[in-house]
Formats: sequence, structure tokens, C-alpha cells
Amino acid sequence: MGAGRIDLNSDLGEGFGTWRLGDDDALLELVTSANVACGFHAGDPDILRRVCDRAAERGVVVGAQVSYHDLAGFGRRPMDVPADTLTNDVIYQIAALDGFARIAGTRVGYVKPHGALYNRIVRDEVQAAAVVAAVTTYDASLPVLGLPGSAWLRLAAEAGLGTVREAFADRGYTSEGTLVPRSEPGALVTDIDEVARRVVQLATKGTIHSVAGTEVSVAAQSICVHGDSPGAVAMATAVRLALHDAGVTIAPFVA
Amino acid sequence: MGAGRIDLNSDLGEGFGTWRLGDDDALLELVTSANVACGFHAGDPDILRRVCDRAAERGVVVGAQVSYHDLAGFGRRPMDVPADTLTNDVIYQIAALDGFARIAGTRVGYVKPHGALYNRIVRDEVQAAAVVAAVTTYDASLPVLGLPGSAWLRLAAEAGLGTVREAFADRGYTSEGTLVPRSEPGALVTDIDEVARRVVQLATKGTIHSVAGTEVSVAAQSICVHGDSPGAVAMATAVRLALHDAGVTIAPFVA
Amino acid sequence: MGAGRIDLNSDLGEGFGTWRLGDDDALLELVTSANVACGFHAGDPDILRRVCDRAAERGVVVGAQVSYHDLAGFGRRPMDVPADTLTNDVIYQIAALDGFARIAGTRVGYVKPHGALYNRIVRDEVQAAAVVAAVTTYDASLPVLGLPGSAWLRLAAEAGLGTVREAFADRGYTSEGTLVPRSEPGALVTDIDEVARRVVQLATKGTIHSVAGTEVSVAAQSICVHGDSPGAVAMATAVRLALHDAGVTIAPFVA
Amino acid sequence: MGAGRIDLNSDLGEGFGTWRLGDDDALLELVTSANVACGFHAGDPDILRRVCDRAAERGVVVGAQVSYHDLAGFGRRPMDVPADTLTNDVIYQIAALDGFARIAGTRVGYVKPHGALYNRIVRDEVQAAAVVAAVTTYDASLPVLGLPGSAWLRLAAEAGLGTVREAFADRGYTSEGTLVPRSEPGALVTDIDEVARRVVQLATKGTIHSVAGTEVSVAAQSICVHGDSPGAVAMATAVRLALHDAGVTIAPFVA
Repeated sequence: MGAGRIDLNSDLGEGFGTWRLGDDDALLELVTSANVACGFHAGDPDILRRVCDRAAERGVVVGAQVSYHDLAGFGRRPMDVPADTLTNDVIYQIAALDGFARIAGTRVGYVKPHGALYNRIVRDEVQAAAVVAAVTTYDASLPVLGLPGSAWLRLAAEAGLGTVREAFADRGYTSEGTLVPRSEPGALVTDIDEVARRVVQLATKGTIHSVAGTEVSVAAQSICVHGDSPGAVAMATAVRLALHDAGVTIAPFVA
Repeated sequence: MGAGRIDLNSDLGEGFGTWRLGDDDALLELVTSANVACGFHAGDPDILRRVCDRAAERGVVVGAQVSYHDLAGFGRRPMDVPADTLTNDVIYQIAALDGFARIAGTRVGYVKPHGALYNRIVRDEVQAAAVVAAVTTYDASLPVLGLPGSAWLRLAAEAGLGTVREAFADRGYTSEGTLVPRSEPGALVTDIDEVARRVVQLATKGTIHSVAGTEVSVAAQSICVHGDSPGAVAMATAVRLALHDAGVTIAPFVA
Repeated sequence: MGAGRIDLNSDLGEGFGTWRLGDDDALLELVTSANVACGFHAGDPDILRRVCDRAAERGVVVGAQVSYHDLAGFGRRPMDVPADTLTNDVIYQIAALDGFARIAGTRVGYVKPHGALYNRIVRDEVQAAAVVAAVTTYDASLPVLGLPGSAWLRLAAEAGLGTVREAFADRGYTSEGTLVPRSEPGALVTDIDEVARRVVQLATKGTIHSVAGTEVSVAAQSICVHGDSPGAVAMATAVRLALHDAGVTIAPFVA
Repeated sequence: MGAGRIDLNSDLGEGFGTWRLGDDDALLELVTSANVACGFHAGDPDILRRVCDRAAERGVVVGAQVSYHDLAGFGRRPMDVPADTLTNDVIYQIAALDGFARIAGTRVGYVKPHGALYNRIVRDEVQAAAVVAAVTTYDASLPVLGLPGSAWLRLAAEAGLGTVREAFADRGYTSEGTLVPRSEPGALVTDIDEVARRVVQLATKGTIHSVAGTEVSVAAQSICVHGDSPGAVAMATAVRLALHDAGVTIAPFVA
């Protein structure tokens, strides 16, 4: 009924070769959208195959989490990649993942940039446009996921792409409804119960309490729960249960 | 008319980053099937995009030239990759290239392994089956290109894949119709006119003269002309002209 | 006194970028020789620096754990690398690690191949000779660590290198004193107390009980304790305590 | 006598695997200092070995041309690498190259950053300090080569390193003695004779004619001749002959 509806997304498939990061299997039971690493910052073909297969079995939507080509830095180091190269790097990643999604009986359902690229295109219009160009060129029916107010979502919308705004379960917000920078107090919310309460408020009222104590509007269709932090599974579980108890429908934003 | 029909294939897109190998543009005017490197032994997203675009413009069929993951060794070093990993590595490569082929208005039309993988699966049934599994899983309508008599073509046929046999324009053949090993005399034919004559004989009579001087049957639907040797363009040009003069239709094996 | 003396070695520095494998800090308190990954199968410059610094502080000897160039496969996939290239790949790795060892006030003290290369050069004389050539060329005073009876140790000795034989704390041995293949029963000993007892027997009597129950001679100057298995730290701790209780001196084989 | 003395440096060893860039052998006959790629943007162990061997035979000084870790971008893409990681990345590269230099009977004689890192640390003091820290940590007796007026040379001097200023044979200079940006007219001098005349003027008078026609002072102890442009060998040859005719001693800045 009318208590609202929300998508839960998380970064998955972030291992490489012998290395693992996060508990993919556990998170695939909890989220509705999986941002799957495509091999440029993490993820290898074995991992892509496995995550796509399991996501498809569970009805979790597969999203392409595209990145700079930087395995050593896990895609967390901003790079001045030429726009054309960035576009082609992103196409390559989406297409590779889409191959495994098709094999699993589904398709890549959306695109969400990772790490340094995600942060860079909040403001950098040249790189934002390059990633938008990749999506429109590959498949203009793919929606994109990102930060409200970002150049990324704005340029994607102008290019005719569907856009999905996300909020962060464990991040503090300013009175203006933007994220508290990680270097400032209140940037991270670590108490699981508080995170769960905040997510319910986001999903049911479309608001969140800022670090200043004010109630601000944050219109999000999806909530990102981290996949690789120590208590990731416990937090995602608490969030999911709290949403369920509040009568919120947890469902992918992709139909 | 009835003078026969043959496909010419060549390895293309074999640069990486700042490095180039071979003259892709010149060869795309000469061949009918382009074996395009997919990023594991050579080829980066910019190169894949450019080669697919140009191939599509010229009606050259795009094939996925899949390889071991070995950029430092250009895919020329045999590796004992587990079968499942090899299957997924190949799927990843085909899918990535297919993304650029679709953008260019075409599709990946066939699969041809590269270098050490090509040679390995002439006899190694486990790895041959792993590559076959990749193709059948990704798209069972894709034909595969390879060496007559190889485990690769045999297992592909058994799996229901279309198979295309290739001959080599500049390689010597034994009286049994197999390639003269590179370590033995007569392994390479370097005279351009002789190469051209041999190709015409292959295309019109289905035979070749062995190093022993005997005429042996070599049933090939495609002829591989090397793309990265110093005289590659001159040789491909001579081959093409000689085939034309002999009335042979040069056309892709993929419809 | 006469209770013997033994070195304990373990593979360390096996993370890469954001990924970690094993508990380097804990193991550096327990072993006397650290086989440090040099960047080809694992290990990045930050990790090399940190492990060398901490090893030097604790008096743990730094060894170069050299590998095929295969990050995706963690160096566990046999590769047919040309001998000259293998030699140069190994020199590169030793030299890079040696830079960090010098900075830490020490030097690379020995060389131990990793994974597929370790196994390959038990019998492959060409690759074994290539790795030997790397060591003799880089610094002929460096001893090498390996499996008793291997081509690697034999060719190293013939080339005038110091050789150190190792035994494995948690592996089963045949009546001939060789390792039980991993595919056979008894290949792994998982009980911590039994592992500790076997190590004490190895260190004090130079023997081990085979899977057939016979007591066989295994002359080892170093014992390898695994660094990346789930109970690695617990097992290394038990081994160390048992050796201490038995009056065995635990000390590096490198003076 | 008083006609001056100058060093000629060039980027060498810029191939990777099967790919080649520039004519290393020809340039090693012409220059006195070789900036050798260390494997992060180009250069593999086989190449490092070969270039070091040949440089040592000819008395050409081996310099470490260190770079961001970016093979796909040839080190030409600025990256926001954390300072500690950058320091360790640079140490790793110097140490690896130094191994091959030692084998060749010499040592790394200086450090010169490559591409995007070179340009970045003209102004970026954090990254400049990180590279300086790498050199002082590895071997504080190593001089560094760079652009006059750069943060890189200034911070290196403050840290007690020897600093060597370089000028560019084929670049235009402003009336202030700085390089004309590549996007502006006069940025490149392509006429070989003019380049040779400019180099002689630099070496004998310490001046150069700016794009505005004024004679400006450019105090350089080394002149960079490009190694990878089409006419690289011809230009380096012309420069060397013109210097010789002018009585200028061409000699390494490293004693």
C-alpha cells in the first residue's frame, strides 16, 4: 500500500582473480539492484559471470558499474582521460557485462559510475558528457543512476536518458540536502539502527535529518548500501527489515 | 562465374594505447573478414571502436579474435588457464567487441582464436572445448574460423557451430596438407608472386603444392593474410589482384 | 644445544591495491623468512614498502617471491614464457623488491619462486635454468629456496648458488619423501596439533611420517607455513610454540 | 676550449611486449643520457635489459624515466595518485631499472619523470615532493632532470638533490624563456636545420630566440631530443653534427 517504494543498490563483484571484496552472495539476497564491476577497477570474467547468474536467479537488476581503467587504484584515483577514450572505455565495460547478463537471461539494466569517476562527474561536464555519450551510443533506453544535482544526471536527462537519483544510507547530509564531505564531522553514520531509521524516513517521507538537525528534502528513488565495509551485510539486513516493517515496497527502479 | 569464391581474413586492431601494429586502414580495403583483437592480447576500446566503424563502412565482417589474457606476451605464450576461466575470458572478449560492432551497425560475425590459443586448441581438447563453450553460450549462431583438422573445428562442429577452414597464404604445406612447422625449411613463403599464385590455386582448385612438390588438397573457405609483417599490405594487395585476375569472387564467408 | 635449528618461511605481501590476502603483520611476528610478492602475481609498491619495513624491524629476512607475470591468475597458471624473458622478468622482480629492502636497511636475502613457476621448475629444466640465470646474474651470493629433489635446486647448486631445502608443515609425504599430490588422500594435514608435531619431528629428527605410516627422512632447513589460508596465523603460532617447547632454535637460514 | 659543453638526452625503451616505439639503437649512438622507461608507462624487462646493456657499452648514462602506472595511456594522463603511493611507485621503478643497470656494469645515473607526471610536477608541489621523496629515499646522490623553474627542480634542490635543467630542441620559447604551450602557434620547430642552429645557440651562448624574435636566456645543461617522432633519428643526428661543428663537447652531465 501507500507507504512508499524504494530500490536498494549496492556495489558487487568487486573482487579480482584470487582476491575477494564484500560478500556478493549475501548482498544479492538483500538488494534489488546490483552495481557490478566490469573489469576496469575490479571484476574479472569469472566474477562477472557468477554475479550476473545469481542476480538473474534472484530478480536483482544488473547495473554496469563503469570506472576509469585503474586496477591498481581500484578506480579511486581521478584521471584526465580524453573524452573519446572515456566514452569508449565505458562502452567496452557495459558491453562486456551485458554479454554475461544476456547469458544469464537478463540484460544490463542501468549504468552507475564508480569511485573517482562517480565523484568527478558530479561537476566535470566534459567527463560527464563522455559517459552520457557512452550510454546513449550503446543503448539509449538504459537509465543512469547517480547523485541528485550532479552534472552527470543533468546531462543524462538532457540527452534523453532516464535518470535515477540515489541517497546514501550511511552518509550525513547538510541542510542543503547535499552530502557532508568525508573530511567533516557527521560525514558517516555508523549506528545500524540510526541508518535503518534514516532509510525509512527517506523512503516514506522523502526527507532526512541534516547534521544541523533540520529536516531536508532528499528525493531518491534508490538507496545505496555499501557492499565492502566490515558490517555491510548486517547494515543492509537492518535496512531491509526496517523498510519491510514500515510497509515500504523494496523493488528495482528498473521495471 | 564458376572460378570459385574465397574469403580473405587478417588480424587487425593489434595496437594498444600509443602503440600500433600493422596498417589497419590499408588492410580493411583488401580483406573481407577482420579478426579484431578484443583487448586481452592487444586492442583497446578506442581501437575496437575505430576498426569496427571502418569495417562496417566497407562491408568487412568483424570477427572476434579472442586470446589468453596476456598483454605483455601478445597472447603468444601458452597458458594453462582453467577451462571455466577460459570460457568466461572468451565470452568477455566477444561481448566487448560485439558492443562496438553493434554501435557500428553490424555484429560480431565469427570467432577466431589468436596466437598461442589458436595453436594450443589444434590439439588440446580441454581448452578447445572451453572456447567452443564460450561461443555456444554467447551466440550459437556464430561460426568459428580455424585450422582444418584441429580439435577446435571438430569440437565446434560437434557442438553444432558452423565451422570455416582457413589456409595460410604464406605458409608451406607438407604432403599431408598440414603446415610445415616454423622451425623447418620451407615453413614460410616470402616471394609475393609465389604467394599470390598459391592463393589462386587454393581458391580455384582447392589444392596447394607441398614442400615436397606434390599437389595436395587443402579445402579452405578463407585465406589468412598476415597483417603485421613488413610487407603485409603489399602481399595482401598482390593476393587480391591475382584472385581478381583469376576470376575468383572475394567475399566474406559470413553472409 | 642439540635440539636443532629451523627456519620458518611464509608467503607475504600478497595483496594488490585495495585487496588484501593473509595477515602480514601477524605472520611477521611468527616467521623468520618472508617470501615477499614482487608485483607480478601480487604485491604493489605500497605493500612491498610496508612489508620490507616491518620485516626489517623484526629481523625477518626478506626473500623475493618471483612469479610469472599474471595478476589475473595470481601466478598459479603455468605459462610457456621464453627463457630469456623469464630471466629478465625475475631480475626485474628481485631488483624492485631489493630497492625497498635497501630502504628498510636490509637486502633481499634469498629467492623463492611462487605458485605455478615453483611447481613448473621442479621438473622443467629450461625454466629452472632461466630462473637460476636471473639469480646468478643479479647477485650470485643469493641463496635459493625450493623443493628437495627439484631441477630448480639442482641447477642452482650446479651454478654455484646456495640452496635451501624446504618442507611443508601441512602437507602429506609419500614413503619416498615426496609430497602427496593434492588430488590424493592425505595430501593435506589440517589438524593444528598434528601439524605442530610433524614440524617438531622434522626439525629435531629430520624425518616425517608418510601417509603409509613409515618414517622417512626429509632434510629441510626451512619449513613453509601458509600465509593465506583461514587458520594461517593459528597454525603458524602453534608451530612456533611447539618448536620452542621442543628446544628448537627458530632462526633464518640466511645469516 | 670555451665552446661549451652539453648533454643530449632522449626517451628510450618505450616499447612494450611486441610493440616498439622509436629506434633505440640509433639514438643510443647519438645521445649521452638515456631516459629509460621502467615498465609503468612503457618498457618491459626484456627492453630494460637490452637498453641498459647497449647504453653501458656506449657510455650513455642510464636515467630512470618514471611515470604514473598507466600503460593504456602511456603515462600521458594526469592522475591524482596519493603522495605515498606515488613515492613508492617511483621507488619501484628506479629500483627495477637499477637492477638492469647494475647487471650492465653501471647504475641508474639520474631520474627524469615522464609525460603527464613531468608536466604535473612543474606546478603541483604535492606530487613534486612525492617524487623528490622517492629519489632522496632511494639514493640521495642521484641528480634529477627537469624543466627550469619547475616545482620539481626547486623542491629537489631544497631536498639537497643535484638538479639538471633541460631545454627542448624542437620547442618554441616565449620571451620569458618558458615553453610556448602546444596549443599555440610556434610551439613546435619542425625544420631540422633550424633545430640544429637553436641547439648550438643554446649550448654556446645559453640563449634561444623566442617566438617574438627576442633573444632570451635559457640556462640548460641538457637538451632533450625526441625519440619517438618520425624524423627523430635524423633530427638527433643533425643536432649532434651541428654541435660537433661548433666545437661543443657533447658529454653526459653525470660524471
